[in-house]
Amino acid sequence: MTYSEYDLRSGYPHMDLIQRDLLTNIMADLMQRDVALQYTFDRAGDPWSREQLAAWMNTQQETPVLPDELHITAGAIPAIDQIARYSTKAGDIILVENPTFYYLISKLELNHCEVMGVPMEADGADLNALEDLCRQHGERISMFYCIPTYHNPTGYTYSAEKRRALVELAEKYNFTICEDSTYQMLYFDENDLPPPLIREFDTESGRVITAGSFNKLILPALRVGWIWGKTEQAEGIKAAKTAVTSAFMSQIVGELIVRDEMNQMLDTARKFYGDKYSLMVDALRANAPEWLQWVEPNGGYFIWLTLPEELTATDVYAATEAEGVTFLPGRNAFVRGDAPDRYMRICFAMQPDDVLVRGVEIMCDVLKKMPVTAG
Amino acid sequence: MTYSEYDLRSGYPHMDLIQRDLLTNIMADLMQRDVALQYTFDRAGDPWSREQLAAWMNTQQETPVLPDELHITAGAIPAIDQIARYSTKAGDIILVENPTFYYLISKLELNHCEVMGVPMEADGADLNALEDLCRQHGERISMFYCIPTYHNPTGYTYSAEKRRALVELAEKYNFTICEDSTYQMLYFDENDLPPPLIREFDTESGRVITAGSFNKLILPALRVGWIWGKTEQAEGIKAAKTAVTSAFMSQIVGELIVRDEMNQMLDTARKFYGDKYSLMVDALRANAPEWLQWVEPNGGYFIWLTLPEELTATDVYAATEAEGVTFLPGRNAFVRGDAPDRYMRICFAMQPDDVLVRGVEIMCDVLKKMPVTAG
Repeated sequence: MTYSEYDLRSGYPHMDLIQRDLLTNIMADLMQRDVALQYTFDRAGDPWSREQLAAWMNTQQETPVLPDELHITAGAIPAIDQIARYSTKAGDIILVENPTFYYLISKLELNHCEVMGVPMEADGADLNALEDLCRQHGERISMFYCIPTYHNPTGYTYSAEKRRALVELAEKYNFTICEDSTYQMLYFDENDLPPPLIREFDTESGRVITAGSFNKLILPALRVGWIWGKTEQAEGIKAAKTAVTSAFMSQIVGELIVRDEMNQMLDTARKFYGDKYSLMVDALRANAPEWLQWVEPNGGYFIWLTLPEELTATDVYAATEAEGVTFLPGRNAFVRGDAPDRYMRICFAMQPDDVLVRGVEIMCDVLKKMPVTAG
Repeated sequence: MTYSEYDLRSGYPHMDLIQRDLLTNIMADLMQRDVALQYTFDRAGDPWSREQLAAWMNTQQETPVLPDELHITAGAIPAIDQIARYSTKAGDIILVENPTFYYLISKLELNHCEVMGVPMEADGADLNALEDLCRQHGERISMFYCIPTYHNPTGYTYSAEKRRALVELAEKYNFTICEDSTYQMLYFDENDLPPPLIREFDTESGRVITAGSFNKLILPALRVGWIWGKTEQAEGIKAAKTAVTSAFMSQIVGELIVRDEMNQMLDTARKFYGDKYSLMVDALRANAPEWLQWVEPNGGYFIWLTLPEELTATDVYAATEAEGVTFLPGRNAFVRGDAPDRYMRICFAMQPDDVLVRGVEIMCDVLKKMPVTAG
């Protein structure tokens, strides 16, 4: 597999945001620090890194985070895997938004669980459908995996009301909410902030365990993410860890916090991706056929396109790929056996401006030639 | 948890072997190489790193390795977890040597499998006992995890005959051999090499999948290991991967190979640990009570001690810990419910020479005061 000429498919960060000199400098310093090089005794991950992470998170949110509530992981995917291993047993059901982060569906199934979808709405998962599944399947439902802010792939963000109601459902039906916070901090407009993490609506029950990652912000090859649970859950979460983590890599995050670089990096990324997002939305507005619908999330990495019923994304893909433009066919992001073929996910993060705009133009030209009945 | 004054417990590498300047230099170079920084398309891991790894492995062994047979992992533990996820289903049985690498027992159980022990003998696992278990449990047995060279914790090495016979058993009873090669290259005497990897006795059946790691050799915080399977297994093994790996870290290994540093590092480590091993054996010979028995493995990290029946390692631990000396109580390394308390694992890798020798002396002084009937 390689990149296409106009790759709007890959949800990868932009290389211009990588602070190569700063990271090289930090790495050279850490190579002289024994505790960053050796194995870490504490299976929650390097204690110093967790202290810095907690201190920084406490500047970003209302609910206090304790270092003992945090676990270092090798990114969001291993974090979610670890939470699933902690929260489920063989034969259980894991609920996901439908659609969801396409890569994770089969990974969650590795836990010998059945994965079922909950329809996604503009203000978050359809909680009536979720409750129906809880009534139908009872205790077999042990986890709900969700991406509540700038959702991948739809771009939708849960309202505060839905976050609160979801926690109440988790308490009522006794399941874990595995919250993927990957895009939580990647808003483009300071006057349009997303609601707080779902974890912040649950200070007591322990029903919400949040996963996060620094790979998209700092360096994809960093492989540092985190789990935020409750202190009482720490031993159980540690026991579910198999992806051993690197103190060296997590101390890079710690150093960026200590050196007061993290917030600047975040601000730069928000501005940078906000500009890319605007470019893509403008290119869509200027070039898309009038029947094309899309979500404008104002944060995250992706724009979600909906085709009219007479088209399939499979046919569109064949036509755009021939012109060098690729996207994620939306059906890949739906739970098996329930995959409508009317959706396309395009990413504005990775490409240079000219490739991004030209890719959207070519895609729109192709779409305009597709056989759609007027009106 | 912290280190004790005379920590003979931790199976960690020695910090003096870390080539700080060389690694700092390589990292600075890689920070200018985009493909080392970005996500890796190929879920087997960075293709360039796998090519270098295959080229180097082909200088170390008889059986040719293809890059497409290799998968980059975040170390041996995630590799073994990935192999287990590929090879087992819920309710299966995973066999392990008894004793085995203590940390892995509960990790293998995370796959919703039952873990059963096969007694360990001086020339490898008791294959009669293993075949009895196969006859008794049939197809439920889907994997045998083993450390055939300088076994952790016993130090035993499988004979070539047992390696061959084990592959025949795996073919006959249809299970995967998950071979942990962590210590395979860490021999101390060029005239006393271990037999080849079990993987080399199985060029056709695909019954053997080998895991290895560079963390103990290059840098514990590196988090780079590998899986060596067959090309036909590659898609299945990739599908079982959740611990996303870092192209940056795996390209450090690639650079050490390209710069022709790997073999020198290995030679240095063999000499270094061989000297530490000799120091520990000499200290045991000079100070141990005559009733203490131990294995002299001539490779690896550990010496395995056997106490007389009238003592327990639990009592010995309490007494040595009071003097600042800790070791791994052997029973931790046995499968649950079947854990004799007569064994101690001590490690010669991590400590400076003086701490190593003084630790053994103190331990032996404590042992001599234990209530053992003469003769």
